[in-house]
Amino acid sequence: MPIQGTDNMSAPQKKILIIVMDGLGDRVCPGLRGMTPLQFMRTPNLDWFVAHGQGGLCDPISPGIRPGSDTAHLSILGYDVNEVYTGRGPFEALGVGMDIQPGDVALRCNFATVDDSLEIVDRRAGRIREPETTELVEALDGIEFEGIECYVKESTEHRAVLLLRGDDLDPRITDPDPGGDTHLRMAEPLVEEAQLTADVVNLFMEECHQRLRNHPTNRKRVAAGLPPANILVPRGAGSFPHIDPFPEVHGISATCVAGVGMIKGICKACGLDVYPLPDDCDGSLESDYIIKAQCAIEALKEYDFVLMNCKAPDIAGHDGDAKLKCETVRKLDDMAGYMRQELPKDIVVVLTSDHCTPCSLMDHSADPVPIAFYTDGIIRDDACEFSEIGCSRGMVGRIRGNDIVPIAMDLANRTEKFGS
Amino acid sequence: MPIQGTDNMSAPQKKILIIVMDGLGDRVCPGLRGMTPLQFMRTPNLDWFVAHGQGGLCDPISPGIRPGSDTAHLSILGYDVNEVYTGRGPFEALGVGMDIQPGDVALRCNFATVDDSLEIVDRRAGRIREPETTELVEALDGIEFEGIECYVKESTEHRAVLLLRGDDLDPRITDPDPGGDTHLRMAEPLVEEAQLTADVVNLFMEECHQRLRNHPTNRKRVAAGLPPANILVPRGAGSFPHIDPFPEVHGISATCVAGVGMIKGICKACGLDVYPLPDDCDGSLESDYIIKAQCAIEALKEYDFVLMNCKAPDIAGHDGDAKLKCETVRKLDDMAGYMRQELPKDIVVVLTSDHCTPCSLMDHSADPVPIAFYTDGIIRDDACEFSEIGCSRGMVGRIRGNDIVPIAMDLANRTEKFGS
Repeated sequence: MPIQGTDNMSAPQKKILIIVMDGLGDRVCPGLRGMTPLQFMRTPNLDWFVAHGQGGLCDPISPGIRPGSDTAHLSILGYDVNEVYTGRGPFEALGVGMDIQPGDVALRCNFATVDDSLEIVDRRAGRIREPETTELVEALDGIEFEGIECYVKESTEHRAVLLLRGDDLDPRITDPDPGGDTHLRMAEPLVEEAQLTADVVNLFMEECHQRLRNHPTNRKRVAAGLPPANILVPRGAGSFPHIDPFPEVHGISATCVAGVGMIKGICKACGLDVYPLPDDCDGSLESDYIIKAQCAIEALKEYDFVLMNCKAPDIAGHDGDAKLKCETVRKLDDMAGYMRQELPKDIVVVLTSDHCTPCSLMDHSADPVPIAFYTDGIIRDDACEFSEIGCSRGMVGRIRGNDIVPIAMDLANRTEKFGS
Repeated sequence: MPIQGTDNMSAPQKKILIIVMDGLGDRVCPGLRGMTPLQFMRTPNLDWFVAHGQGGLCDPISPGIRPGSDTAHLSILGYDVNEVYTGRGPFEALGVGMDIQPGDVALRCNFATVDDSLEIVDRRAGRIREPETTELVEALDGIEFEGIECYVKESTEHRAVLLLRGDDLDPRITDPDPGGDTHLRMAEPLVEEAQLTADVVNLFMEECHQRLRNHPTNRKRVAAGLPPANILVPRGAGSFPHIDPFPEVHGISATCVAGVGMIKGICKACGLDVYPLPDDCDGSLESDYIIKAQCAIEALKEYDFVLMNCKAPDIAGHDGDAKLKCETVRKLDDMAGYMRQELPKDIVVVLTSDHCTPCSLMDHSADPVPIAFYTDGIIRDDACEFSEIGCSRGMVGRIRGNDIVPIAMDLANRTEKFGS
């Protein structure tokens, strides 16, 4: 006979899907009659999730802090970025599958075009990408200076990673990458202990330019009227991060469904598996989000927790192209429609973004991002539109990125009582 | 020649104006048909800023923490008050232009009227003010006890500051000021190391009463039927604070437009300049807010960041006078109307308060205060009325005082990415 008034009827544990629509939030766009892309576009499927669930706004890190994609994803995975973040280099290295180890220092690089006086004339070398970057990287991988081994691997588009391995490395150096300026800088140590690291980075850049300037791939590019990728410009030095593995912290199996190397790197560093994706899901503007959604649903059969990243809106935002961003919103709404049809019951779905990338800014902003929580049987609130304003009408209120996983875990009936 | 494909196209940087309407928030006032002064009064200009921007509620420190004006302003300037606050005395000392140094201990004082048995009969000495306070202070400045020099300076209205300088001072003493009680207390050390400080404070009070009781200024007051300011009653001992300068932390130039000494002191301690104001802007009920607004607009030509404080609603709240508070609301709305007309474009405007001073309480409360963010091109939300309820309908949600500057800095396109 069932006992009466039991306090601990156990509810079925659900699985969790967090869909991070990268850079999705925006500010008013003059070309969209003063609306944001999410306000401007009809998004019946994204809206469905918030209308049948709960809306809110989320500061990926904290109010007014302009997040990177890396720090935002760490925060969305529940970590305190002030504790765990060691710079973008190491996360990018993990993302491209490099075997980063304690003691290593990693830097992100751009393939760039410099003229004879080492002025940068194109900081993305005409948006060079694979297979050419792969060919160039082969000429650079494994050089050694001052007893330090230098490993190089291509990343997405014009990007690559430089990994330094050896004794006495220290990531506290300035960036050779001059950002908006055109004049390459030498790496300088910020502390005495980083002199060796700065020296090796500078020696590497010099050697790199020597090896790339007449590389066959570049000769072909010049012949075709394209800028040669004749240098690697490093930035964001960081050392191996220490992060408590997400599956251990939460007692669940977890994977990521992402095309971009850096996102995969962050997830891997947090102990998530990296779910294999077909080439159509490469994190570019052309990524096929229906295929990606199929992969996420597939992954949910095997894992308790899936983090899915869709990069396209961020790319459109960085390009300052509001119409293109609207197009990515349409694709994301189609993806949400597919999810709505095909997702099994008993999934906690979180729709959100890692940061806004306003077209007017062509970069990330700290504006809070819309968020929706949906699961079968959740209390419905007043929010019925997935947009910056629409979600703000919901009962979630204004939360932070590292509140997401705890809330989702609780909706999934997977949290334990603190106290009794 | 601009380089191609720059990663950090910068949007135009804006300037920031934070208008702190001191003590503005309230609770229901029976005399205002159960409304707050902000609800009761027509405020078309304050409303304009929230209607064309975003509304929210702000806990100046954190929910349920009843802020002082000093701690609230520190928090609004982005500091963690639990780290930087060393008591009101030192901030008041800075505000009246005293040269406070490491090792000093400062206390706030009231000029008060005591009878022959040292019972307080008027804790504001009939609201004595300059020039009489200046005359009295001259009789007190520079006395020395036990090797400790005592400096005194008049502040606004019936207030003054006592600054102690010498070796082995320690601010951990009890307040001689009995607050709502009438019986003067001796300063007592809270720790053994503060015995000297307590002794000096007690010796100073005794000597102070001796020197003031027959002071010519007081004889004139008695002859005129006014209570004599025959003692200085100290409270709020604190030592020199360590605060990272605001302009360095945020990389911007900053000033304050404030009449009240204590607010100027806080801003100065935070590294802000103190913008010179005409006598009409003295932080009293009679302050001319149009002139103050003109000064703020003038200051914005020179500085990236201006904090403007309007003290009048707080004074009305402390007096428990809801009608007077309504009158200050009307003046503030006129000020907002002037701002609306005269402010240049490309300013981020924040309208808020440092705390509520409910008329029913005649003191500060921890109720959250209304806040509005406005700038050209900001997403508009559902909030359209600048009041406690009206702002709560907006998308800003419920933030904290030290979220304000980061949010404003981001709206001003002045933040840097954390990560990439």
